Amino acid sequence: MSTAQPIAIDRAPQAHPSPMHFFQTIHAYQSTAALLAAIELDVFTHLAARGTATAAELASDCKASPRGIRVLCDYLVISGLLMKSAGSPDWSTHNYSNTPDSQLFLDARSPASLAGSVSFLGHADMKPIVDQLVTAVRRGGTGREGQGSVEDENPAWVDFARTMVPILMPAADRIPELLEVGKAGPVRILDVAAGHGMFGIRCAQAYPQAHITALDWKNVLEVAKENAAKFGVSDRYATIAGSAFDVEWGGPYDVVLLTNFLHHFDTPTNEALLRKSRAALKPNGRVVILEFVPNDDRVTPPATASFAMIMLRDTPGGDAYTFHELSAMMTKTGFKDVQITSLEPHPESVLVARA
Amino acid sequence: MSTAQPIAIDRAPQAHPSPMHFFQTIHAYQSTAALLAAIELDVFTHLAARGTATAAELASDCKASPRGIRVLCDYLVISGLLMKSAGSPDWSTHNYSNTPDSQLFLDARSPASLAGSVSFLGHADMKPIVDQLVTAVRRGGTGREGQGSVEDENPAWVDFARTMVPILMPAADRIPELLEVGKAGPVRILDVAAGHGMFGIRCAQAYPQAHITALDWKNVLEVAKENAAKFGVSDRYATIAGSAFDVEWGGPYDVVLLTNFLHHFDTPTNEALLRKSRAALKPNGRVVILEFVPNDDRVTPPATASFAMIMLRDTPGGDAYTFHELSAMMTKTGFKDVQITSLEPHPESVLVARA
Repeated sequence: MSTAQPIAIDRAPQAHPSPMHFFQTIHAYQSTAALLAAIELDVFTHLAARGTATAAELASDCKASPRGIRVLCDYLVISGLLMKSAGSPDWSTHNYSNTPDSQLFLDARSPASLAGSVSFLGHADMKPIVDQLVTAVRRGGTGREGQGSVEDENPAWVDFARTMVPILMPAADRIPELLEVGKAGPVRILDVAAGHGMFGIRCAQAYPQAHITALDWKNVLEVAKENAAKFGVSDRYATIAGSAFDVEWGGPYDVVLLTNFLHHFDTPTNEALLRKSRAALKPNGRVVILEFVPNDDRVTPPATASFAMIMLRDTPGGDAYTFHELSAMMTKTGFKDVQITSLEPHPESVLVARA
Repeated sequence: MSTAQPIAIDRAPQAHPSPMHFFQTIHAYQSTAALLAAIELDVFTHLAARGTATAAELASDCKASPRGIRVLCDYLVISGLLMKSAGSPDWSTHNYSNTPDSQLFLDARSPASLAGSVSFLGHADMKPIVDQLVTAVRRGGTGREGQGSVEDENPAWVDFARTMVPILMPAADRIPELLEVGKAGPVRILDVAAGHGMFGIRCAQAYPQAHITALDWKNVLEVAKENAAKFGVSDRYATIAGSAFDVEWGGPYDVVLLTNFLHHFDTPTNEALLRKSRAALKPNGRVVILEFVPNDDRVTPPATASFAMIMLRDTPGGDAYTFHELSAMMTKTGFKDVQITSLEPHPESVLVARA
């Protein structure tokens, strides 16, 4: 064995073990896809001609949707291939421009243009991924059939429930402390779109008088029930099988959990979910929302903001919503006292509001 | 227009315009493919069991080739997912180990294992790319048919010649100064596998008495001849059509250029090319080699060292050779006074040696 010092190339120094580097590497192919899609849509060339452009202006040039261009261009800012000016929470006012390198090398009219080299460098097998993204940018929503990843009974969610617990556990571990229901005696908690169930199960473990009701499709609930048994809370664990949009939620509850759910849907759909949540809560009951919440600039923090691209690709109307947008949805549907807590280094935040 | 400061997320601060960030983003999908391939080959789990392992030991565990495992694991070190100890230029002695995060999250036996989540997170369309890489790691060379990218008359090289000039120009601009043949009067230069021809053409422009002979497949030479005309050196530009391995090279020459050529082949093939180069040179004539030359650790500089993965994937025996390996090939074939010059920030180096 060599006595040389081990070589470790750190991307981002970190104090605690974190699955974030794994998570980012799994998604790294998206930066290649975004670059190839932007070249195919002539984003860099149109930006070079305009100097700066809003998403709507650029969408008009590129024959795409403003929403699709906004998500693609924000991702390119995160990837260091574009710049943006974001003076207001309203994304329709944000201005995009080329970086000096993109202006020189990616404007198809530039003598130094590298746009042609993608036919040599762009791996042929990336084409289906790039095509899918180009379609999503043009449409402003998934290029997949029907509702994409949120299609009814999509078996991917059983996969999700079975395999994603280690990634989400750092977030699940933080939910009970944010509820502070320890002295409240018996509390009833509804876990909407429970998946693996760990968000509700952690609450049951933290509060011995808490009773959990998990709501999800029947096939997914099997995983939640297995986890409830594994963590010893089955005696305080009920289930409601079906779509959160269609079934009765019962109640009234002290707490409704909406974890990793709102990002799949557009604003009107989320407002309907929030109204249904409020109707199922006791007076002063609380809704707890776990989400990827980027800053108003929509490009920071990078790991949080880049999630918008997955929603553009996989859903008809989902997004990584800002705090501004989420609190507007909650206020409009009658919630008050909206609080947000970042779960750093986990890329998500928790919002809590009162009915 | 907003008055806010533009937001530019810099990956690597740089003094001059550079296509490197474009180049790295085009290849970013490879880090996703490498991670997924390593999970499929159980690299992290076997490393967790052994603590540290050489490429040969790990290859035995993973039922793969030592060479394939070496290239994959070096790439994973560059990607921040493994560590290595490299005390000697001989890669067979290098030891790999998990990072703390990989040990915790990617050992399939770990309770925190995320290996299962790739079925949810790993984009289904990445499968052909991952399959191709897994095959290459098992074989120790391309999973593609025949000779892969270096198959005779592969039309990809016409694409290369037509589109890659802007990426290679910073390197081509540096070749004439390294030759110092300005006062030598008439010099004859052979440009082997000339491609776009710009390496020879830049020499012709710098030295008005230089005469260039470009050698490549016939379809590729058409591009080189167009460029010779475009840059005004057609009157001092001859061509030899065919494979560098099969045709007579003529001569004797003052200089033989082997630019971006050796990395496609194994060591015996390169030694044959170097012998043929020496036989075509005048006494004291020089061979000029442009290559991706990583340090002996094979993981630095990252943009240089990661090129080995493309050669594993696309060729039967190509590599990113170290200076140690290249100078051994040159010494063995009779060259002397081997000099190396880095072309930073361009990721390649130039080696010059005397016949």
